[in-house]
Amino acid sequence: MTSLRVALCQMRVHPGEPARNAGAMLRRIDEQRGKADLLVFPELCVPGYFVGDGWERPAFLRECELWNERLVAATAQAGAPAIVFGTVAVEWGTRGEDGRPRKYNAWVVARDGKALEHPGLRRAYGVKTLLPHYREFEDGRHFYDARELARDEGRSWEDFIEPVALDVPGGSLRLGVLLCEDAWEDDYVQKPVAALAAKRPDLVVNLSASPFTRGKNDKRNRVFAAKARLLGCPLAYVNAAGIQNNGKTLYTFDGRSTVYDREGVVVADAPAYEDTVEVVEIARTVDGGPWTVENEEKPGRKNVPVVSTVHRPPSTAMIPEVYEALAYGAQQFLASTGLDKVVIGASGGIDSAVSAALFASFLPPENLLLVNMPSRHNSDTTRNLAKQLADNLGCLYAEVPIEDSLAVTRAQLHELNAVSGSGSHSVTLKLEGLADENAQARDRGARVLAGIAQSFGAVFVCNANKAELTVGYGTLYGDIAGFLAPLGDLWKHEVYAVGHYLNDSVFGPRVGHSVIPQGIFDIVPSAELGAHHAVDEGKGDPLVYPYHDRLFFAFVQRWNRATPEEILEWYAAGNLAVEVKLPQDLDLKKLFPSATDFIADLERWWNLYNGIGVAKRVQAPPVLAVSSRAFGFDHRESLGPAVYTERYRTLKKRLLS
Amino acid sequence: MTSLRVALCQMRVHPGEPARNAGAMLRRIDEQRGKADLLVFPELCVPGYFVGDGWERPAFLRECELWNERLVAATAQAGAPAIVFGTVAVEWGTRGEDGRPRKYNAWVVARDGKALEHPGLRRAYGVKTLLPHYREFEDGRHFYDARELARDEGRSWEDFIEPVALDVPGGSLRLGVLLCEDAWEDDYVQKPVAALAAKRPDLVVNLSASPFTRGKNDKRNRVFAAKARLLGCPLAYVNAAGIQNNGKTLYTFDGRSTVYDREGVVVADAPAYEDTVEVVEIARTVDGGPWTVENEEKPGRKNVPVVSTVHRPPSTAMIPEVYEALAYGAQQFLASTGLDKVVIGASGGIDSAVSAALFASFLPPENLLLVNMPSRHNSDTTRNLAKQLADNLGCLYAEVPIEDSLAVTRAQLHELNAVSGSGSHSVTLKLEGLADENAQARDRGARVLAGIAQSFGAVFVCNANKAELTVGYGTLYGDIAGFLAPLGDLWKHEVYAVGHYLNDSVFGPRVGHSVIPQGIFDIVPSAELGAHHAVDEGKGDPLVYPYHDRLFFAFVQRWNRATPEEILEWYAAGNLAVEVKLPQDLDLKKLFPSATDFIADLERWWNLYNGIGVAKRVQAPPVLAVSSRAFGFDHRESLGPAVYTERYRTLKKRLLS
Repeated sequence: MTSLRVALCQMRVHPGEPARNAGAMLRRIDEQRGKADLLVFPELCVPGYFVGDGWERPAFLRECELWNERLVAATAQAGAPAIVFGTVAVEWGTRGEDGRPRKYNAWVVARDGKALEHPGLRRAYGVKTLLPHYREFEDGRHFYDARELARDEGRSWEDFIEPVALDVPGGSLRLGVLLCEDAWEDDYVQKPVAALAAKRPDLVVNLSASPFTRGKNDKRNRVFAAKARLLGCPLAYVNAAGIQNNGKTLYTFDGRSTVYDREGVVVADAPAYEDTVEVVEIARTVDGGPWTVENEEKPGRKNVPVVSTVHRPPSTAMIPEVYEALAYGAQQFLASTGLDKVVIGASGGIDSAVSAALFASFLPPENLLLVNMPSRHNSDTTRNLAKQLADNLGCLYAEVPIEDSLAVTRAQLHELNAVSGSGSHSVTLKLEGLADENAQARDRGARVLAGIAQSFGAVFVCNANKAELTVGYGTLYGDIAGFLAPLGDLWKHEVYAVGHYLNDSVFGPRVGHSVIPQGIFDIVPSAELGAHHAVDEGKGDPLVYPYHDRLFFAFVQRWNRATPEEILEWYAAGNLAVEVKLPQDLDLKKLFPSATDFIADLERWWNLYNGIGVAKRVQAPPVLAVSSRAFGFDHRESLGPAVYTERYRTLKKRLLS
Repeated sequence: MTSLRVALCQMRVHPGEPARNAGAMLRRIDEQRGKADLLVFPELCVPGYFVGDGWERPAFLRECELWNERLVAATAQAGAPAIVFGTVAVEWGTRGEDGRPRKYNAWVVARDGKALEHPGLRRAYGVKTLLPHYREFEDGRHFYDARELARDEGRSWEDFIEPVALDVPGGSLRLGVLLCEDAWEDDYVQKPVAALAAKRPDLVVNLSASPFTRGKNDKRNRVFAAKARLLGCPLAYVNAAGIQNNGKTLYTFDGRSTVYDREGVVVADAPAYEDTVEVVEIARTVDGGPWTVENEEKPGRKNVPVVSTVHRPPSTAMIPEVYEALAYGAQQFLASTGLDKVVIGASGGIDSAVSAALFASFLPPENLLLVNMPSRHNSDTTRNLAKQLADNLGCLYAEVPIEDSLAVTRAQLHELNAVSGSGSHSVTLKLEGLADENAQARDRGARVLAGIAQSFGAVFVCNANKAELTVGYGTLYGDIAGFLAPLGDLWKHEVYAVGHYLNDSVFGPRVGHSVIPQGIFDIVPSAELGAHHAVDEGKGDPLVYPYHDRLFFAFVQRWNRATPEEILEWYAAGNLAVEVKLPQDLDLKKLFPSATDFIADLERWWNLYNGIGVAKRVQAPPVLAVSSRAFGFDHRESLGPAVYTERYRTLKKRLLS
C-alpha cells in the first residue's frame, strides 16, 4: 500500500503582500516537515487576488517572483513536503494584450527544491484555462489564459491540461491541478475538468480564491461533488481565507476547503474563515489501482454523496452564514484601517441598531460609541430606544442635539443674498423643505459623527441598507457616509432577520437577554426629518419594504435583470406576486388601488435607481458583500437617465386607457 | 468612372438610449436620401458603449434589436443610402462565458431594406475581433469576440474578416469594416488589419467609440495613416461624439472622424465633439482599378502623409485640447444632471479659480455662484482675490463665514463626555489639531456648499486636483465632495497652465482682460486651515508641487508604474531628475538635504497614496478624464496597506547606513 498525507493549507491571504503571504507559507512548510507529504495552498496565495492594477507594477511582480523562488527552494529542506501553490507567473519578454509583460494566473508544483515542469505547457508552471470576466472578477484584464496561449501557438488547449507526475512515498502519483474557475466550467465551451478526467489523474486539487456569497457553499458542494465523480478520483478544494476588496466592495473569503472522494462524498472540510490546515490521507492499496481517501465521519458531518438537486432554502435560512460573513468582514476590515474603535449614529431605528449590535459582537464595549443626535423632529420613543440599546450593549453613549447647529445654518443660508459685483444679478436663497431635511442629515454625518470619530480615534459606520442604496434614499455626506456600509448588501427584511439572529443566537446565549429592544423592531422605519416622518403617528419612510425590497431585488439581483417592462408585463398578467416572490400577506391591490398608482410608484423608483441613486452610490462608502450582486464593483453602472423601452410605453398606454 | 459619396456620420451617442440614438440616425438617413450613397456611423452607436451592466437587461437588448431592425428597414426607402453602423448583436440561444445570452460588439451593413450577410461569418452582421480589457475598457465582460467564436467552431479567425460586396452606382465595392480596437492591433498576436488587407478591400471603414485623452488624436493619426498604407485603400475612421461615463470616471468622446487616402494622407476630418456629417467622394477611374478619395486641401489642413515619427509635445503644448475636453465634458455632464446652475467654493486659490473660470466660460453669469467661506485662518489676501475673481467673471457672489458654526461644533464636541449605561466606561473627547482642521473643511462642503447648492437648484463642484487626490490631501465630505471633479485629472502645474489659457485665450479675446487675478497665480497654495498655513507668511501645503507632481505621475501614470523601489534606485543612481522629468530649476539637493529626508518624504506620500488616498477616492466625486490614467475606473485599486519590496528595503538600508 502506498499512501500520501495531503495537507490542505487554507490560509489567510493578504492581497498585495507577497512577503507576508509567502512568509506564512514558509512557516507552514517548516511546521509540516516529516508530517505531511504534499501541501496544497490556494490560488494566487503569494500575490493575493484583488490587487486592483497592482499587476502593472514591475516591482510588485519581481517581488512575487522572488518569493515564488524561495517557496520552491524551501522544499529542498530535509523532510520537507512537496507543495502546490497558486501565484502569478510573468513572461517578461512577451506581451499581454494590454502591451505589458504577459502574466498568467498560474500554479507551481515543487519538490526537492525544484519546480516540476508542466508536461504539456513545457514551463515550470501550469496556467488557468478559464478566466472569469463577470461580477467582481476581471481576470482577463491582467492575465493571459491557456486557451489564448494555445491559439497563439497553434496547439490545442487540452494539451495544457495534464497531470504532473509527483514522486510520493513508495511510488508516483498523477496530480491534476485546476485553478478555481477551471472547475466552474458549465457555462464555457471548453471543459477543463472533462479534459483532465480524460488524462486519468490519481488526485486533483483545485486551488481557489473564491469570495463568500450567500448560498455559494451549497452550490459549490453540488458542483464539486459532481466534478469528483467525473474525475473518478479524490478532489481537494483549497480556498483562501481573509478579506479582499475592489475599493467599492469588500469581500470575505470563507475558506471552507473540502475534500471529496471519487463518489462525491465530503470526507473532510475545514472551518469557515480560519487560517488552518486540514490533513487527509490518500492511499492506493493495489498497485495501479485507484487512490482513495480516508473517509472518517466527524460529528456534524455525515459522509453521504452530495447530489445535484436544486436546493433553494427560504430567504432567512442562510442568516447564520450571512451574520458570520458580516462579523468577520467588519472585524477584519476595521483591523485593516489600523483603528480599533467605532462610532455609530444610533437613531433608535433598526439599521443602526443592527449595525451597533454587529460591532458589539466583537468589540470591547469601551471601543464602541453610540451617538444619538436628536433634532426637534425626533420622538422620545426613538431617543429612548437608542439609549436602551446602548445600555443593553454596555457600550459608550452620548447625546449630541443638532438644533443649535441647524439654527446657525438656517440663519446663514435661509434668505441668503448672493449678488454679482456690478449688482446686475442677484438671488435670495431659501433653505426649506427637502433642503432643510438634508441639512439635518449632513449635520449629523459630516459634522457630528465625522468629528467625534476623529477625536475618538475611531471610524464611523454607514448604516444604509440595500433598499435605501438602490434608490438613493439617504443623504450624501450625511447618512450615506462612513468607513464601511456593513448592511449595504442586505435588503430591509434581511436587516430585521439579522437583528433577530443577533438577539436570539449571538447575544442571547452570551448575555442571557436580547440587546436590540423589541420596540426597535416594532416602530415604523422613519428618517424623522420632518413632521411627515412622525413615528408615533405611524408615519415614516416612503418605502413599503415588504414590496419594494422585492421590486428592487428584481431590478438589481435577478439573474435576468428586470426593468419596468417585465414588471409591468407581470402586473398586467396578474403574476407579479409569483415572479418577484412577494410575501403572501402583501395585498397588492390595497397597496396600489389602480394601475395608475402602480405605474407611478414603479417609475418613481426606477427613475431614482437609475438617476440620483447611481450618483450617490458613486460616492458611497464601500459595501460589505454577502449576495451575488453587491453594489460597487459587482454592479457596474453609469450615471445617466432612466430609460423606458418601447414595449413598456405601449403596455403602459394600454393599461392607462 | 464609378463614384460613391460616403458620409461620415459623426454623431453624439447617448449611452443606454437606443430610441434616441436610432431616432437621430433615422433622421440622418432621411436627410441624406439622394445625397450620399453610404452612411457610416460609429461603433455601438445604437446602444452606446459605457452602459455598465445594462447589457444584462434582456429588455435593453430587445430594445436595441428593435431599433437595429428599423434602421435596416429605413434603407428600403426610395433613394435611401446604404448604411453601416455599430450595434450589439444578440444570440439568445447560445451563451457567453457569463452564462447569459451571447452578445457581440457587431457591425451591420444594410442596403435596400436588408442587412447584408457577412460572407465568412454567415450571419447578418460582422463582429469585433479584438476586445480591449485594459484602462476603462472591459469589452470582454459582456461580449464574445471573433477569435473565441472561431475557436469554438474550429475555424480560423481570419475567416471572419472579409469585405462585404456592396452594390454601388455603376458597380460593386468590397467594403471592409473594422471596429475600433481591430485597428489598434499592434499589441495583439492576431492582426485584423493585416488579415483584411490580404483580402483586398476597396474601402475600409473603422467604426469607433474612442474617448478623448490628451495626445491620443496625434497617435491615432499616426496609427491609422500606417494602417491605410497597409490596406492600400482609403480608410474612413468614424468616431462617436458626446460624453459617457463609468460612474467614477467621465469621458468625452471627441469624434474627430477622419478619412485617410491609401498613402496615409488625411483628406477629410470632422471637427471635434460636433454632431456632424462629413461627406467625401471616392471614385474608381479604371474598371478593376483602385478606389481613390478626393483630395481637396482645406484651410488649416495640409494634405501630407502622416508619418509614424514619435512625436512628444512638451507638457503644456496640448493645453488647448485639454481645455476643450474640460469645457465640453463639464458642460455636457452638467446638462445631464438636469440642472443648469453651479455653486463653487472660492477660496482665493488657483484650483477653485480655474474651476470657476471653466464653468463661467459656458454658463450665463447669473447661473454661477461663488461662495467664499472664511474662518479666522483665512487671510484678507485670499478673500479679496476670491471677490475679485467673481467680479471679473460677473457672476453671483456670497460670503458665508464659518466661525459661528464652528463655535457650536467646538462647544459640542470638544470636551464631549461619553459614558456607558452602568458608568463603568467613559471617555472625554477633544476636537483639536487635525480634527479641528477637518471640521472646517466639512463645514464648508457638507454644510454650506451642499446647502446652498440645494436651495439654489444647483450642483456644487469639487475643485480637487490630481496631486491632492493621489495622496488624499483633502477632506472627505469637505473639499472632496461635489457633483464632479473637473480638475481631478490635472496635475497642479497643469491647473496653472489651464488657468493661464483661460485668461489669455478664452476670456482675453472674449472680454478683453484676464479673469483670474495674477495674485491667485502668485500666492503659495494653501488650505488655510491653521496658523501653519498662513499664506501671507508664505506658508501653505506640504506638497512641493513641482516635485510631487512628477513623483506622483510616476506612481500613477507612468507606463511601467513606479514604486519606491524604482524611485530610490533612480535617486541612488543620480538620475531621478531625468527619469521623472523634474523641472530643470528644481534643486533636489536643496529640497532633500539628505537621503533620510528624501526617503521620509517618499514613504510619507507612498503610504498616503496607497492608504487613506484610496479610501478617499472610493468616496470621491466622478473625475473628468483627460489623461490616459484618470482616477476611478481606469485606475483600479484596493484598500490596503502600502507595501515596500525587499529590494527597496535593502537599498534603503544601504543609503541610510
